[in-house]
Amino acid sequence: MINVRYEEAVKAMERGLLRYLPEEKARRFAEIFAGNSRDGVHSHGMNRYPRYLSDMESGLCDPNVTEAERVSGVGALEVWDAHFGVGPLIAEQMASRAIELAREHGVACIALRNNSHWLRAGRYGLMMADAGMAGICFTNTCMNLTAYGAKQNSVGNNPVTLAIPRKKGSLVLDMAVSQYAYGKLEIMAQQGKKLDSPVGYDTHGELTCDPAEIVKSGLMLPMAQWKGSALSIMLDLMASTLSLGRTALQIGTPAEGEKGMSQTFICINPAAVIDMDKADAQIEETLAFLNGLTADGKSAGVHAPGENLASVRERSMREGIPVTEETWAKILKAGE
Amino acid sequence: MINVRYEEAVKAMERGLLRYLPEEKARRFAEIFAGNSRDGVHSHGMNRYPRYLSDMESGLCDPNVTEAERVSGVGALEVWDAHFGVGPLIAEQMASRAIELAREHGVACIALRNNSHWLRAGRYGLMMADAGMAGICFTNTCMNLTAYGAKQNSVGNNPVTLAIPRKKGSLVLDMAVSQYAYGKLEIMAQQGKKLDSPVGYDTHGELTCDPAEIVKSGLMLPMAQWKGSALSIMLDLMASTLSLGRTALQIGTPAEGEKGMSQTFICINPAAVIDMDKADAQIEETLAFLNGLTADGKSAGVHAPGENLASVRERSMREGIPVTEETWAKILKAGE
Repeated sequence: MINVRYEEAVKAMERGLLRYLPEEKARRFAEIFAGNSRDGVHSHGMNRYPRYLSDMESGLCDPNVTEAERVSGVGALEVWDAHFGVGPLIAEQMASRAIELAREHGVACIALRNNSHWLRAGRYGLMMADAGMAGICFTNTCMNLTAYGAKQNSVGNNPVTLAIPRKKGSLVLDMAVSQYAYGKLEIMAQQGKKLDSPVGYDTHGELTCDPAEIVKSGLMLPMAQWKGSALSIMLDLMASTLSLGRTALQIGTPAEGEKGMSQTFICINPAAVIDMDKADAQIEETLAFLNGLTADGKSAGVHAPGENLASVRERSMREGIPVTEETWAKILKAGE
Repeated sequence: MINVRYEEAVKAMERGLLRYLPEEKARRFAEIFAGNSRDGVHSHGMNRYPRYLSDMESGLCDPNVTEAERVSGVGALEVWDAHFGVGPLIAEQMASRAIELAREHGVACIALRNNSHWLRAGRYGLMMADAGMAGICFTNTCMNLTAYGAKQNSVGNNPVTLAIPRKKGSLVLDMAVSQYAYGKLEIMAQQGKKLDSPVGYDTHGELTCDPAEIVKSGLMLPMAQWKGSALSIMLDLMASTLSLGRTALQIGTPAEGEKGMSQTFICINPAAVIDMDKADAQIEETLAFLNGLTADGKSAGVHAPGENLASVRERSMREGIPVTEETWAKILKAGE
């Protein structure tokens, strides 16, 4: 791993993106990749840059489309079509639109269809929370998990984010409906670790706690078995119904290339109806309680999601963003 | 177990409720208890009737309050106060209000504070879906689960419901943020069963797959460990922030009596913005795919949440609602 300064990372990625995007859009997309890594979300940051370039090259993502088109709307509910454009730029546009509508109506919902991968779900919740709003956003994905009860990839890991404004720094949960990412299982397999729960199948179709076997079979369950499976099905059908966009089934398997996701952006403006100072005091009371719990000896204590974001971000800006040599080399090469 | 006819169950419970409630409200509350059991949600139906009577007797729930009061509102976002009244009646009022607002604005959010137990979360999502709307509702609870990383009950199991309209019968997910209910663990312990995942602590503070030990310690983890724990914290803080209502911490431990929950009702009206026939066809396509998956040999195949609701309901109406002799005896006694 090496540490790269944020500005240097942005400039390097902007160079590669200029082949596909106008200057302003290239700059913003580079800031998104770098910003996600800066915030510690390394799984959906700079490491995804080479893949996104090749998706724009192959046409899986259309770089000519950087803004979604409004299809229909009534009051605070709108449907937009991304036309397979640049996922994170369009998702930011939708989050901004949801904030704007929530300012007017108290609450808003944007249903988006045909978007490309939006990278980090939490980014869009965070945008809302940083604007003083509560956010609930979710996307469907290709079928990359086995529905509970079947040994075949048949549901998505459908990341969902919940975000809450807080004076000391917004709280944000960003989670896929799987217990682990495959990348994490690979690392655990290399370390010879076993899981404490059977989160997938081995190559003989038996549930297993061996991460190496799950990586081999490519058959991972949703988190919490039947619960995560049910949640995944509902998030998929809700996102695709509201936008009349593709379902996980229509997006297909990972091998087909993940194209045209359905995404939902719900934004709520509590400042319009409650005393935010009092709400903030309640949040701090709960956080102080959670932080003060006696840790179980294995973890670093209990924290609310996103509670440490400000310090992670600050460290990245001070010491640079940690990135693998391999990724950094690819980024530099793409900018040549 | 005995089978009781729906109408007989409603009349029997109505008699006991008339001590606390006017006739129309007593009738409706009895229909809610019976209806939840009729729909197969036995954990939050008639079995809860004796406890709700004693909660009204003790003052934990105020039977004089059967409607919430509107505190504030802007556009499609409103805050209401339940003043510790009759939970399910007030939750139905809020779901109706959310539907009404969503019809006007496309989407609506009702934030409710100080409500009593609403029994079955899915009921309120189902109301929305049966009205052609998509619903997202959640409540916080007392601290009945251990936050991940601590061996102390410190977060709630915060049930959440997602519901989607469907011509053949609405889809509805209704789940708490715990892998099991304690009642289920007790049954598994009696049967000598072991869990495949360590969902709680034993009395020595070690994670265990022994349901008897978890029942003994009273220390259960949220589902999916860190993921469910984070989800629980966010649902709690979102519900309490939006309504300026009590947090799980303020509601306290189960021993203190669960009083004054914060609940959120989000309702979205897709019929205003998309072609519902096309959406319905997409839903059926996904359900046919899921139903057609080869089952793993342990389960009865893959179904979407709520897919079997109509047949369960129909059977209950035909054969009667299954209820334990003990519960039925208590219901009859309370009506004397």
